[in-house]
Order: sequence, then C-alpha cells, then structure tokens
Amino acid sequence: MSLRLITKYTGGTLPGAEEYAELNELAAAAHNTLENGTGAGSGMRGWLRFASRYPDSGEYKQLLAAAERIRSQADALVVVGIGGSYLGARAVLEAVASRYYNEIRRGTPAIYFTGNTLSESDYAELDALLGDRDFAVNVISKSGTTLEPAVAFRYFKSRLIAKYGDAEANRRIYVTTGASPASSTLYQQALAKGWQCFAVPEDMGGRYSVLSAVGLLPIACAGIDVDALLRGAADAAAAYAAPGARLPDNACYHYAALRYHYYKTKGKAVELFASYEPSLTLFGEWYKQLFGESEGKEGEGLFPASVTFTTDLHSLGQYIQEGRRLLFETVLTFGGPANALAVGEEPGNGDRLNYLAGKTLYQVNRAAFQATAMAHESGGCPNLVLELPKRDAYHIGWLIYFFEKACAISGYMLGVNPFDQPGVESYKTNMFTMLGHPDYI
Amino acid sequence: MSLRLITKYTGGTLPGAEEYAELNELAAAAHNTLENGTGAGSGMRGWLRFASRYPDSGEYKQLLAAAERIRSQADALVVVGIGGSYLGARAVLEAVASRYYNEIRRGTPAIYFTGNTLSESDYAELDALLGDRDFAVNVISKSGTTLEPAVAFRYFKSRLIAKYGDAEANRRIYVTTGASPASSTLYQQALAKGWQCFAVPEDMGGRYSVLSAVGLLPIACAGIDVDALLRGAADAAAAYAAPGARLPDNACYHYAALRYHYYKTKGKAVELFASYEPSLTLFGEWYKQLFGESEGKEGEGLFPASVTFTTDLHSLGQYIQEGRRLLFETVLTFGGPANALAVGEEPGNGDRLNYLAGKTLYQVNRAAFQATAMAHESGGCPNLVLELPKRDAYHIGWLIYFFEKACAISGYMLGVNPFDQPGVESYKTNMFTMLGHPDYI
Repeated sequence: MSLRLITKYTGGTLPGAEEYAELNELAAAAHNTLENGTGAGSGMRGWLRFASRYPDSGEYKQLLAAAERIRSQADALVVVGIGGSYLGARAVLEAVASRYYNEIRRGTPAIYFTGNTLSESDYAELDALLGDRDFAVNVISKSGTTLEPAVAFRYFKSRLIAKYGDAEANRRIYVTTGASPASSTLYQQALAKGWQCFAVPEDMGGRYSVLSAVGLLPIACAGIDVDALLRGAADAAAAYAAPGARLPDNACYHYAALRYHYYKTKGKAVELFASYEPSLTLFGEWYKQLFGESEGKEGEGLFPASVTFTTDLHSLGQYIQEGRRLLFETVLTFGGPANALAVGEEPGNGDRLNYLAGKTLYQVNRAAFQATAMAHESGGCPNLVLELPKRDAYHIGWLIYFFEKACAISGYMLGVNPFDQPGVESYKTNMFTMLGHPDYI
Repeated sequence: MSLRLITKYTGGTLPGAEEYAELNELAAAAHNTLENGTGAGSGMRGWLRFASRYPDSGEYKQLLAAAERIRSQADALVVVGIGGSYLGARAVLEAVASRYYNEIRRGTPAIYFTGNTLSESDYAELDALLGDRDFAVNVISKSGTTLEPAVAFRYFKSRLIAKYGDAEANRRIYVTTGASPASSTLYQQALAKGWQCFAVPEDMGGRYSVLSAVGLLPIACAGIDVDALLRGAADAAAAYAAPGARLPDNACYHYAALRYHYYKTKGKAVELFASYEPSLTLFGEWYKQLFGESEGKEGEGLFPASVTFTTDLHSLGQYIQEGRRLLFETVLTFGGPANALAVGEEPGNGDRLNYLAGKTLYQVNRAAFQATAMAHESGGCPNLVLELPKRDAYHIGWLIYFFEKACAISGYMLGVNPFDQPGVESYKTNMFTMLGHPDYI
C-alpha cells in the first residue's frame, strides 16, 4: 500500500467493534451509491476513472505539446482561474516542486496565478512582476463568465495584444473551458480567435478537476512529471476500487468513516489538516475547498482548517493543546529524506545544540511530528496520520485521488450531495445585481 | 476615528440593551484589570505603551542604522525566527509592501524567513535561493534555545563563515534576543563574538512583540516606514486608552465585547478573519497566533481561522453560507484605491463584461464585499467589519495595536491569562526527550 493510514495517535477515541460494523455498512452503502450512480450529483463522477484513461487521449498529447510550446515562447505563464481552476494546480506545483518554485526554477517559466482576486494592487504588482518578460496566458473557466477570471483575462489579453499584436497574442492564449459554444463564452471567443482549447470535463466539478487539463497544463509547464501524477492517481483508483471486508482494508474508506465518526459520535466540529512541509501549505487550501464545498451544506459538515507544522505549533499549538476540544487532526507525513542534511558539530557548543550533531533534519522533523502527535492525543485532540513514502508527483497524484474519493464517500455517508455547491450563488446574485449585470436587473 | 467597526451586517444578532450594559461592565472590569496590572500575566504588558516611547530610545536609532547597513552589505536578509519572532514581521512586510515583495523589490534586500520549520527540503531550497548572493542574518529568539531557530542559525551562521570568514561573518549577524546573558544563550554568544544585539523586551510575549526590534529590524530593512508604523500604533493606544461611556465609543473594546457575545451567548465556535487583499493573508496568520494562543486554554476559546476573499469564496464560501452555523466573520476592508485601475471596454463584448467598463477594480471588489457580507449575514453568519482608510504603514500599525488590546481585553473578559501559553510545552518536552536533549534525560 502506497499510503498508510495510521491510527495509533487517537487516544482511545476509535470506534468500538460494534461502531466499526455500523460504519462499515454505511461506507459500503456510500460505495454503492457512488459506484452505481444512484446518489445526488451522479452526473459529476467523471474523476472516478479519469486518470487511467486520460493518458491515451488525443487531448493529453496536445496538452504536453502545448506545455512544450509555452516553455519555448514564454518566461512567465499567467494562469487565470479561481477555486478549482486555481487551487489544484498551485497545490501540486508547490507540493511537488517547491513553494519557492518561481524563484528557484531553471529553464521553465515562472507561473503566476491570478483571476482569483479583485484586488487592484494585486493586478498592479503582477504587472510589475511581468515587466517586459515574454509571457503567455492560460485562462481556465468552465463557463467563461465567472467574474474574477473574466476580468483578469480581459486585462491580460489586452496586455498581450499591446505587446505582441493580435496574431501573436492569439498564439499565446491557451483556454481551458467547457467544450461547447453553448456552455462557454470562452469557447465561443476561442473559436473566433483560434485560441488553442482544452476541455473542462462536463462531468467533473471544479474541486475534482485538478488531474484534468484544468490543473495539468500549468503543472506540465512547470516541468512536473504529469505522467507520474496521473499514474499515482490511477493506481490509487485501483487500490481503493472496492471496500474490503473490514474498513481498515481500504484506507480511503477507513479515513472517510473515521471523519464521520469524529463528527457524528465524538462531537468534533473542526478537522485540522496538518503537514510538516511548508511546500504543502497550498495543498491544505486545496483540501479545504474539496471537503468544505462538498460537505458544508444543509447546516452540517466539519469545518476544514489547515496548519503547517512545526511553524504553527508556535501559533495555533496552544489552542490545539488546550483550547476547546472541538478539533481532530489529519496529519500528512512523508518517508525518508531526499538529501540527508544533518545538523553540524560546533566547537564550544555556544548554542548547546551539539546533542543533535549528526542527526539529519529529517530525523529531527520526524521527532517533532511524533512528539506533537503524542502531546495532542493526550490533550484530547486525536490524530489521523496519512503517511506517504515520498513527496513526488506519483505520490501526490495518489493522495489527490485518496482525498477525492474519501470526500465523495464521506459526503454520501453524511447524506449530502458531495458534488454541488448551491450556497455559492448567494453572494454572486447580490454582487451582479449591485454591479448592474444585464441578467440581474 | 481611523478605524471604523461596522456592525450593520450582523442580521439581528447584536446584543440587546441589557446585554450591552452587561458587556460594558465586563469590558470596563477587564480594562481595569489590564491597566492596573491586577490580572494574570500582568508582567507582560510592555506593549501597551511601547510604540509612543520606542522612537526616542537609543536602540531605535541603532536599529535604523543597522537596517541601513544591512541594505548596503546584503542583497538578501535571512530572518531566523518562529512564532512571534516570525509572523509579525512577515505579516507587516506583505500587508504594507506586497506578498510579492521579494520579486518586485527595488534596491532593498530580499527577505527570507526561516528557522520556522524543520523541513529539510526547505533548507535546501533556501540554499538554492541564496545562491552566491551577499547576505546577512537576523536571528530572533528570546532564549536562544528554541529548537527551530537554533538549528537554522547554526546552519546559516556556518554558511556565512564559509563564505566570508569569521570576522566578516560576525559583521553580518544581527541578534534580537533577551537582554542578559542569564536569559539568553544567544546573548552570551553575541558578547563573545561581537554581534550587534537588539532586545526582545522582557515584558512582552512573542505574539505582542512585532512593534519592538523583533519585527522592526526586518521591516525596516525592507524600506517600510517604521516611524509611521509606530505612530499608527501610538495613536491607536491614545484612541483606545479608556473605555467610553458606551461600548461603541471605543471600537477596540466594542470588538472585544462582541467577540465575547458571539462566543458566550450566540454559540459561535469559530471566528473567521477575512480580507479582500491577498497581501493580507499573512496578517491573518498573525491574527490567528495572537488570539489562538491568548485565548485557547482551559478548554475554552474561539478557534481562529482566516480566509482571503474573493479567492476563498470559491473554496470555503459554500461552507460559510450553508455549513454548520458555528462561524462569525471579522472582515477587514480598506478605503479608496491607490491606482484607480478600471475595467476596459472591449469591441464585440465576447466575454460580456462591457457592463463593467469604466468601473474601477476597487469598486468591483467593494461590491463583492458588500454582496458577500449581505449573503453571509442572511445565511446566519454575522459579519463584524473593520474598515481602515488606507493600506499603509500607519494604518497597519494602528490595526496591530487594535487587535493586541482587543485580545488582552477579550482574554480578561473570558477569565483567562491572555499572556501565557502553557500548552506549548507539552510537545516540546516529548520532543526534547526523544532527541536526547541533555536537560531531558
């Protein structure tokens, strides 16, 4: 098994045998609902088997070629998208490469994410960042009408035209959108202008779309091994295809069931996603959208929060240890180190650290994780630990699928539609009315 | 009044007249406890009047001179610190300058924050980032023995020595630490090596220390107007010095009292800090440490979370609108725009955005804020809005003091010590034992 779910830091809060039997039944029922397409939102299950099929598609080859072309024509790629059209790509970019990717890259374009804010100063700063560098734009929007990316695309498109003229600008625009003129204003414009198009699959919600062209085009531009990413997800799909006889036989279902248990039986209100790698911070944001948007409805759902340790042990650590007992943690850890950097020996030992000399940072970080898990467990905050052998494209692909399927199973266990987001319309209606949108007046 | 607390988006959840009278009494009592030093942690109130006095100190002049020297000797400043020795400086740097500061700076050093993680790959990446650039180190640690900064300082100090030799390395190390050999191993080493020292005030906890040398040295290196930052905090201290006859007379106390009201009377469990500026994201992290560490004890306290809108309306928006009704929001907004960037007109209107042509991004972002506040309010998530005239050093200084004092008042209202963090020791004890620390075996 590529991912291990470790439950030893849960301080006697695991379900008893009878509870486990009930959870197993609930999970099996959710599995049937998901697999048979009998549940709410059944039209949005395209992600279930996408990763094993996509590599054989014509679009995938075009996507790799487009990434190659972008790398040759641009020193910066401006990615325009919000929500699921933003978080997945950035999360993978940082998790597999680095949170410092833009500053340490070698030979691949800088990747700037925009269209996810209406902050004027953010536009001005991104303008300054681009300077006179060669750039290209990947605009990602299923309908083409979401306000933030539409405004940003209009802006950066005009900047492209001003810099390169119409014809060359058109060769530097890459569109990921709904694959028909009826479903997307972007698709209509792309037809007229000759922009290269990739599909936002119709049967996938934004938060489940990172392993489609939505996420893969920017990820491929950064030189990340997208083959391995998809292979990881495909292998996870095979590994978690069926519930086992017992819940622990399927780590994905087991995790979904334990979340349910902490929410329904143990009175926990907040799930705290934690990792010990700063480059996983954005992955925590992706996880928050996935679960928050899938389960936060009908007045229910765990509130998803995230931290990066040990950084946040020195900020939220106090609360986790001794604040209200409404939290449980889902902690992501990785196996052995890449570089084996060790603490040095220092003559005089002025900083009193020589007791660590020769220990690798990996060992020290690992001790911090174990010490923290034990401390939080005994403070009444149970820890579910997800351990991956390595932080690379393959295992991040695996992890993405793990969370996606766990989220779908979990949503059906709770009795909600894990694939819709009806509450997002509320502020949009207010906003479009205020702004005088022709469809809202 | 420089900061306005706007309560109109609270959907009938404000306290009634009688409740207001009780809250007023509670806040006045907390005020007396704080001002008279009769409460727990009374030795840690140094921040209360620090900002008006510090500019006249000898240390402040030395700090400005040191920042000038760092700017002339280094293209990168490595800031080594964790918790309160990290978050405040980075939050101000991003809030006043930009989250892209390192990439768009002109003539001031890049600022890299480390010593806040044990991630091996983060060390390797920061190494790559520094490359062969000239750099200096500011190590910030009250005791000098906190593990993460001690390990990082040993590492980057040895890198300095390898690059420059002992004498020049010593001229590139700046220490912010407890101001006596007894309280700090770092101070002892600094005496021996001749490193320039600045004080972590003994009467200020880390999370209240951003406007001391702890935060000000890196902030000044980035060219931010630290005079204005301190002036803002000093003016806020004067404005919030006394409770008024009615709670709304003192926005700081009013905010503290309303947090208490939502927690104790309205059953809210999570306070969600929101802004509409990506460069305020780190400020949200600072806010989370301040309140989480101050109040999260004895099994009590609001869980502090943060979001950046409109970005996260497309991830956590669904949960906020329709998930469990355990949230209230504290939303930070700013007055008029800096640049007045407007949406352009486009022939053909292929993206159907011409209805926005001529509107500034500020207006559109403002409409998003108002639309969201109304939507969340009607969904059962009340909004407390904090409005500042401008996003600049003066007003960020004001805001820092506002939150610090509100946090102290709020803690005393709850009956906890807002200045300690006893729960942080738990994992440290486990960790030092595992790692074979000589004091723990």
